[in-house]
Amino acid sequence: MGMGSCRTSSQDTVREKYDTEAESYSRGSNQFVTAIRSFPILSFLLFAGCAANSGVEVVGDNFETPQPAKKLVIAHRGASGYLPEHTIAAKAMAYAQGADYIEQDLVMTKDDRLVVLHDRHLDTVTDVASVFPGRARDDGRYYVIDFTLDEIRQLSVSERFELEDRVATPVFKDRFPLWKSSFRVHTFSEEIELIQGLNKSTGKSVGLYPEIKSPAFHRDEGKDIASAALDVLSEYGYTSQSDDVFLQCFDPYELQRIHADLMPAKEMDLLLIQLIAASEEYQSLLSADGMKQLATFVDGIGPSALLLVEKDSTASGIRTTGLTAFAHAAGLKVHPYTFRRERDQMPPYAKDYDDLLTIFFDEVGVDGVFTDFPDLTVQFLENRR
Amino acid sequence: MGMGSCRTSSQDTVREKYDTEAESYSRGSNQFVTAIRSFPILSFLLFAGCAANSGVEVVGDNFETPQPAKKLVIAHRGASGYLPEHTIAAKAMAYAQGADYIEQDLVMTKDDRLVVLHDRHLDTVTDVASVFPGRARDDGRYYVIDFTLDEIRQLSVSERFELEDRVATPVFKDRFPLWKSSFRVHTFSEEIELIQGLNKSTGKSVGLYPEIKSPAFHRDEGKDIASAALDVLSEYGYTSQSDDVFLQCFDPYELQRIHADLMPAKEMDLLLIQLIAASEEYQSLLSADGMKQLATFVDGIGPSALLLVEKDSTASGIRTTGLTAFAHAAGLKVHPYTFRRERDQMPPYAKDYDDLLTIFFDEVGVDGVFTDFPDLTVQFLENRR
Repeated sequence: MGMGSCRTSSQDTVREKYDTEAESYSRGSNQFVTAIRSFPILSFLLFAGCAANSGVEVVGDNFETPQPAKKLVIAHRGASGYLPEHTIAAKAMAYAQGADYIEQDLVMTKDDRLVVLHDRHLDTVTDVASVFPGRARDDGRYYVIDFTLDEIRQLSVSERFELEDRVATPVFKDRFPLWKSSFRVHTFSEEIELIQGLNKSTGKSVGLYPEIKSPAFHRDEGKDIASAALDVLSEYGYTSQSDDVFLQCFDPYELQRIHADLMPAKEMDLLLIQLIAASEEYQSLLSADGMKQLATFVDGIGPSALLLVEKDSTASGIRTTGLTAFAHAAGLKVHPYTFRRERDQMPPYAKDYDDLLTIFFDEVGVDGVFTDFPDLTVQFLENRR
Repeated sequence: MGMGSCRTSSQDTVREKYDTEAESYSRGSNQFVTAIRSFPILSFLLFAGCAANSGVEVVGDNFETPQPAKKLVIAHRGASGYLPEHTIAAKAMAYAQGADYIEQDLVMTKDDRLVVLHDRHLDTVTDVASVFPGRARDDGRYYVIDFTLDEIRQLSVSERFELEDRVATPVFKDRFPLWKSSFRVHTFSEEIELIQGLNKSTGKSVGLYPEIKSPAFHRDEGKDIASAALDVLSEYGYTSQSDDVFLQCFDPYELQRIHADLMPAKEMDLLLIQLIAASEEYQSLLSADGMKQLATFVDGIGPSALLLVEKDSTASGIRTTGLTAFAHAAGLKVHPYTFRRERDQMPPYAKDYDDLLTIFFDEVGVDGVFTDFPDLTVQFLENRR
């Protein structure tokens, strides 16, 4: 495609959602300001067409207009507020809690299998360092891509931790305890079979929300992760826009390639979501024109919630950034991330989790949210019916 | 203890709950009549004391009197109506659906580990026959007790099936499909850690409802399963009647031993439940005297639902057997099994699942139910508040 040459692995790393999320509300200073500088590698978009997708309802900039569409609850890595992220158990719990869509982050193994893990590294959610000592790269990290699926299946999965002076401390101290019970890494196919099996046994229709992680990194390692992900989706019957799947990626070049090349070649036409981090690279997208450009190849955006409400908003004075209105005017759905009930994960202008949801659903007017707490979000939406 | 001599493995098999359940409503003839013949091995009970447990509320035989205690939803093998029984995922789903207690059936491995499986055999829920061909006993079955935990961890777990002409067919055709996704056998400790971890992350207090499976069989094989189960419970802090655990068993001799010998020796005092199948052996228990005798060493009964309502009852004329009244008069809780929404799993006098629950909670007056569908049962109880 000739689009990989100007991107490096380090740029790709910046786009990893967890990294940006983890910093969300902890910096304290003018994060939003730094987030809207420039993203030169997106300049090609200026040459792309500007027509909004046809057939998609355009709400316009008055986003308080009642919208008939159901607000979506997207289980972020499963019911990750309660069980270790991306485990089969966390997905079953999210399903039971009434999520509309369940997220799968996809990374590729040495033997070209897609596994459901947030990071390209295994070392912050598994015991890889003790099971396979000496298999780290020079940066000290254990890369999924350096292990076969059989090797990865030998690992135990834990609630996410950070290593401080070689001692593991939980990222979220009030969640599931570290290293308890019995969890393992599973494949994308196994998660699809879980959700399809539950759709059979419950009679419901819960959808998939897979993310292509770090496509440039995978390409540098000789692997085409987007093509592989599309093949698995197609194998399980997800081929058209009516098939209950949103395919998400932080990399606009990869989404453009999926839209223009991969899906047509595979006779697929899935709904695509451009993820947008609160970082400099995405500055050129945060405008009416940026949204119109995106709408030529995606169906919605998954922005950091930081990008939708001005940082200096107060409880009595919420000021939206206008991005939601730009997106809706271009016919794009808006599914911000990540909604958590913990106080230190919440912006200061929200007094509690329900208040946060009220602000984003009612004042900002988003179409759905990525949440670690599907149950609280489903309950909130049911209570206001 | 000298109590094993008059019991054989085949008698023990009769007491396996699944076997009796599977026949529940399918025989069509006078099953209830055959269920109340004699159970000679229970004759020792005639020599046991007759005092009801002190401190337990005695409701009397008017079981329609409003009872303040919360009706309990016991997740039978997890949310087994939706996911393969006894998997970690099925337990996580049951937890999310609001079950008050989650059931663990316990069986012992060759290397003395307690695993959570309903049967003493591995062949109706795992791929043991293909992974370990030649390891069956003469009866063609693959016994848990002949395999180490490491071996059992290599198996894949499926929705329950029956082998007909060597072809696996699902026991419940509308449930989770056979052999899909990725499930494994886990230990009792791992399940306790799941539930305790969820109690931490959710702030709730869901309890355990472990069953000692086939104690006579285990003793014949040289293993004391009840003692091992008590040790694990104690290790995880379950030692007193206030610790959210009911320990159940079909074998009254083993319950008597747990009550009189094992628990005192281990400084434990858990709530005990006598399971009662709709089979001849339990005939001597189905009376006011039988319940008084049981109340000297257990705190409740877990009878087949067949034993609580006369089989010839009709939708407009439900006739209770009196067993619930006898139990309540003796101070015993009543937790019948198994409540399922499938039409062919329901007695003819109930018009649907909610009607079945209305009959048992309101007309029979039970204190809780074992159900494959915790969500529907929780919803039913919430709707009538």
